[in-house]
Amino acid sequence: MEVVVLAAGQGKRMRSVLPKVLQPLAGQPLLAHVLAAARALEARRICVVHGHGGEAVRTRLDAPDLAWARQEPQLGTGHAVQQALAHLTDGELALVLYGDVPLIGVPTLHRLVAASGDGRLALLTVTMDDPTGYGRILRDATGRVARIVEDKDARDEERTVKEVNTGILVAPVVRLRDWLGRIGNDNAQGEYYLTDIIGLAVADGVEVASVQPDTVAETLGVNSKAQLAELERLYQAGIARRLLDEGVTLIDPARLDVRGALRCGRDVEIDVNCVFEGEVELGDGVHIGAHCVIRNARLGAGTRVAPFSHLDGTAMGRDCVIGPYARTRPGTTLGDDVHLGNFVEVKNSAIADHSKANHLAYIGDADVGRRVNIGAGTITCNYDGANKHRTVIEDEVFIGSDSQLVAPVRVGRGATLGAGTTLTKDAPPDQLTVSRAKQMSIANWKKPLKQPR
Amino acid sequence: MEVVVLAAGQGKRMRSVLPKVLQPLAGQPLLAHVLAAARALEARRICVVHGHGGEAVRTRLDAPDLAWARQEPQLGTGHAVQQALAHLTDGELALVLYGDVPLIGVPTLHRLVAASGDGRLALLTVTMDDPTGYGRILRDATGRVARIVEDKDARDEERTVKEVNTGILVAPVVRLRDWLGRIGNDNAQGEYYLTDIIGLAVADGVEVASVQPDTVAETLGVNSKAQLAELERLYQAGIARRLLDEGVTLIDPARLDVRGALRCGRDVEIDVNCVFEGEVELGDGVHIGAHCVIRNARLGAGTRVAPFSHLDGTAMGRDCVIGPYARTRPGTTLGDDVHLGNFVEVKNSAIADHSKANHLAYIGDADVGRRVNIGAGTITCNYDGANKHRTVIEDEVFIGSDSQLVAPVRVGRGATLGAGTTLTKDAPPDQLTVSRAKQMSIANWKKPLKQPR
Amino acid sequence: MEVVVLAAGQGKRMRSVLPKVLQPLAGQPLLAHVLAAARALEARRICVVHGHGGEAVRTRLDAPDLAWARQEPQLGTGHAVQQALAHLTDGELALVLYGDVPLIGVPTLHRLVAASGDGRLALLTVTMDDPTGYGRILRDATGRVARIVEDKDARDEERTVKEVNTGILVAPVVRLRDWLGRIGNDNAQGEYYLTDIIGLAVADGVEVASVQPDTVAETLGVNSKAQLAELERLYQAGIARRLLDEGVTLIDPARLDVRGALRCGRDVEIDVNCVFEGEVELGDGVHIGAHCVIRNARLGAGTRVAPFSHLDGTAMGRDCVIGPYARTRPGTTLGDDVHLGNFVEVKNSAIADHSKANHLAYIGDADVGRRVNIGAGTITCNYDGANKHRTVIEDEVFIGSDSQLVAPVRVGRGATLGAGTTLTKDAPPDQLTVSRAKQMSIANWKKPLKQPR
Repeated sequence: MEVVVLAAGQGKRMRSVLPKVLQPLAGQPLLAHVLAAARALEARRICVVHGHGGEAVRTRLDAPDLAWARQEPQLGTGHAVQQALAHLTDGELALVLYGDVPLIGVPTLHRLVAASGDGRLALLTVTMDDPTGYGRILRDATGRVARIVEDKDARDEERTVKEVNTGILVAPVVRLRDWLGRIGNDNAQGEYYLTDIIGLAVADGVEVASVQPDTVAETLGVNSKAQLAELERLYQAGIARRLLDEGVTLIDPARLDVRGALRCGRDVEIDVNCVFEGEVELGDGVHIGAHCVIRNARLGAGTRVAPFSHLDGTAMGRDCVIGPYARTRPGTTLGDDVHLGNFVEVKNSAIADHSKANHLAYIGDADVGRRVNIGAGTITCNYDGANKHRTVIEDEVFIGSDSQLVAPVRVGRGATLGAGTTLTKDAPPDQLTVSRAKQMSIANWKKPLKQPR
Repeated sequence: MEVVVLAAGQGKRMRSVLPKVLQPLAGQPLLAHVLAAARALEARRICVVHGHGGEAVRTRLDAPDLAWARQEPQLGTGHAVQQALAHLTDGELALVLYGDVPLIGVPTLHRLVAASGDGRLALLTVTMDDPTGYGRILRDATGRVARIVEDKDARDEERTVKEVNTGILVAPVVRLRDWLGRIGNDNAQGEYYLTDIIGLAVADGVEVASVQPDTVAETLGVNSKAQLAELERLYQAGIARRLLDEGVTLIDPARLDVRGALRCGRDVEIDVNCVFEGEVELGDGVHIGAHCVIRNARLGAGTRVAPFSHLDGTAMGRDCVIGPYARTRPGTTLGDDVHLGNFVEVKNSAIADHSKANHLAYIGDADVGRRVNIGAGTITCNYDGANKHRTVIEDEVFIGSDSQLVAPVRVGRGATLGAGTTLTKDAPPDQLTVSRAKQMSIANWKKPLKQPR
Repeated sequence: MEVVVLAAGQGKRMRSVLPKVLQPLAGQPLLAHVLAAARALEARRICVVHGHGGEAVRTRLDAPDLAWARQEPQLGTGHAVQQALAHLTDGELALVLYGDVPLIGVPTLHRLVAASGDGRLALLTVTMDDPTGYGRILRDATGRVARIVEDKDARDEERTVKEVNTGILVAPVVRLRDWLGRIGNDNAQGEYYLTDIIGLAVADGVEVASVQPDTVAETLGVNSKAQLAELERLYQAGIARRLLDEGVTLIDPARLDVRGALRCGRDVEIDVNCVFEGEVELGDGVHIGAHCVIRNARLGAGTRVAPFSHLDGTAMGRDCVIGPYARTRPGTTLGDDVHLGNFVEVKNSAIADHSKANHLAYIGDADVGRRVNIGAGTITCNYDGANKHRTVIEDEVFIGSDSQLVAPVRVGRGATLGAGTTLTKDAPPDQLTVSRAKQMSIANWKKPLKQPR
């Protein structure tokens, strides 16, 4: 099978400089969702028909398995598919999809392809409570699809038909080539409509099989930011439903956003308003508190993340205790039972098992051993204004509060840094290292007085 | 035209010490929304009839264009309008609005005023799926409004009428004066009902024109906190709809709160759960991450705000990179390409182009130049216990981590402060300035032992 | 009255290692909600029938007022109630509840018990728009309950009945004992159904009284994580409704989570996305900003909490000003008019009236007096790697920014600490105490150069 994806629409109503098919749904361009469906079908070839902003589309989404056809000028959906014909192979089936209909489901498409056997044209139709504006499916006395009548051309009794055309269809390439050569543009818009091939198929005695999608949402198109938001919510509701089915506890399925792939072990619980981006994996028994943002992260079993945490590009082991207000940045690796507390930032660092940084700290470009205690206010000075350097903290070190570790620097195993130390040279193992001025009190000191203004 | 706003109701069911019309909707008193609509009509005069908690209402909302009339005791809506008559001018039209019906729309009112031409009384009516409790509009055989029957007085077939009275109306002042002098209080409550003027108008041969609002929400009143919350959501849904129409990408329109005026450029994206207060302006391509609170702020084109940021009283240039967990307070001005990172607070300070404070810092009462790098843990000590002083950091300065700048103090252009510096005197340009005790290690130091408890 | 709670179900569809009745709803096990309802009825005895994971259930929820009966194997609801018979007393009434029907309401149960007078069997039935799958209540010509027909056995006209059986019922123990001895398991599942006692009651001439719950939600059971999430939302909607009725202003009732008891004074306002856990008490006029998490806390009148705050185990006085991004941990007590600002953590400490810690601080195991000003970056070094020690800061102290207080240590009344002080010995009252190295500048210092990589 071969797939044609129509992706040339401008989408004026989006009021955006971005071509419509690049508008994001769940963090990915609309077109990427359609291409993912096409790829899941293991199509022999996928041809994208692009037009408005076409180079931006191609630059963003090009891949070795895609062929690109340009539609310029844009003379309707039939004309668009015609541009792809050069890429299609006689003897194959062609599936027509739309770059702005992003929720189309693979099981639905499998059924559609199956229905197209024996030379039939298979058309995806959908039954809508309010079909206003859509082309209605008219059937003959035997129940076969006879033709499609556009909303504006429909007579009153035709308007009552609730089954409508989605435009998604499968047909033999050879037939498609023939029909597209015969459709005209004798209409108000002067456009060539793909829909017109239905009439030609019926006239040619080709049976038009119809298939309905698993959900109406699969057939909804995006023409405005309001529709984009609506589809975003439908998409997210589907994700939430799947997670619930898998046994994930969601405190509020309507307040979950997943933009990418979220894989969960058993007995995972996700509190309200969490956002997941990229590839996220949560082990058995992981608990994510309210208002967390987690991107490209792998959390080991039993790890608990308190509210307001922001994790990115991070792998962590089992039974970690994270947050609230913990922030990890890309390149962070935590062992088992690592604790990161409030107002702690970790970047491009490895922290080994049982180590803790519970309060107000910046750990950047550091290698931290096991059973290390990093005091409140500790800062790794990893940047000298020109270059970044690493800090090494060996096992069982105790870093006193408000220390600055001026990298490159190493703290030896079992060392202790006194509070407020500015560490510019390596600290020897097991010793106490400090840099501290003598404490003095000034007996006759006068407090500042409030100045008149 | 002249406007009478009835705002004397106590609102016992609100269970609040605040008068009902001062209850906040989208951060503003209910009455303020009604006054805004009245002002948009460019009324010649706006008279507010106040009663319960009236002084608080007047104190909160008084303005040169308002006249105030006291209703004491409160003997019904007709009686309330009577209190305003002294402020109204014969020969003008009077529009009656309600301080607890906050979503009334200006286009609807324009249509209502237009319908009141040629001496007609124009009445806003609305068709409700469930009209229970409301006065029904009864029409004669020609379709003209004949009278209003209260729910409790309605016969069964009258109860099936779904068109109801909203109480909002426009009438010539001279007529209003006449009718209000003729209505009685011969009812169970012993009150004078404004509604009764409809019957007098019909009896006088005055045509009663009816107009329907653009949405039912415009006519809903607030009598309980549940209704207040419902109207808050309707208001916010309307705001979201308008932003979507303008081309703003909203990841979840149901999780957006705008309390004031939010103006957006092209290709603005707002993630879930953001709250905007006061006057906020977002330039082209601005991206606001999840869970942000932004008040009275102007963000230049291309600026990106990461989650959990809280911006207040701040103007920033183009392409700034803000958050997560950044907090700016009033008096903050940022140039272009300024970076504020996690756990950074900026207050009453100016930071020029290309400067960065990426981690754990407090910058208060400071003037920061261009290309300055402010290290993690830097604190401007702007308060000496009695007075606040300014810190000046000139261009291309590098502030080492965990430095304290004891204001008033100046760091000269191109200077570097070593980590952990307590700066009490000005730092000369281009030099390295430090205040640092010698690092020492104690070889025979014994770690503290866990004490028995 | 005596209560039997059926709690033996495994809940395979929950896909959890936790027994179904221990799944959390609003932070408490499903069964705990049912037991709370049973206790509110002041039952003489409550017998829980447990099975799958029974020991875990008993361990989690055992209490002196509970009797436990084991059902092993599990042969249906009738069989389950049989296991409890040994704990029931002839002459009493028995109420049968379900551990996975958590929203059952006490007023509904009071009505059900009342309906069971004069030897009647009282059955809770509910009218559903879509009764598919439920046993239908069939009534005789006089309107009395005649029998229950299971969905799969129902004839077409029986299927149209919308009144269904909930399984919740009250019957005299002596009758129950008799009927349960007579029901059989002659059905496809080979199970003993409690429902079958209805038929026996009717056959015995015992009147079956029916009562409908106040809301359908009270009768909904939990068999999947999707249903669990749905009931969570219904529960939360009920809480929100109650708070609104009490006069609390909720900016969005659909974005509130209460897991425990939230008691509010007059004129409390709660912004969007707040989560309350445990026992929380908010005094008159308290304002909670957006995105706050508050657990086991008591906030005095007039206190304002800014967004992103996380309060736990904390009591605070009147007119405190908290947040944004303030975090208090258990053992925290604040006086009146205490200010905690952004990125401030307080743990196991008492802070007296009018004291302030407005920026980036960690206050742990400290006693702070009145009118104390704690500068930005202040850290109490309460942990020496082995033991925790207390810090005492007396009244009217000014702690300069970035000070470390190495506990045990005391700062005398009226003392001032200079910025950057490491305090290792007590600071005398009224004096300025510092530990500070001399500030030096290095004139010929060369900045680091970017190294080639």
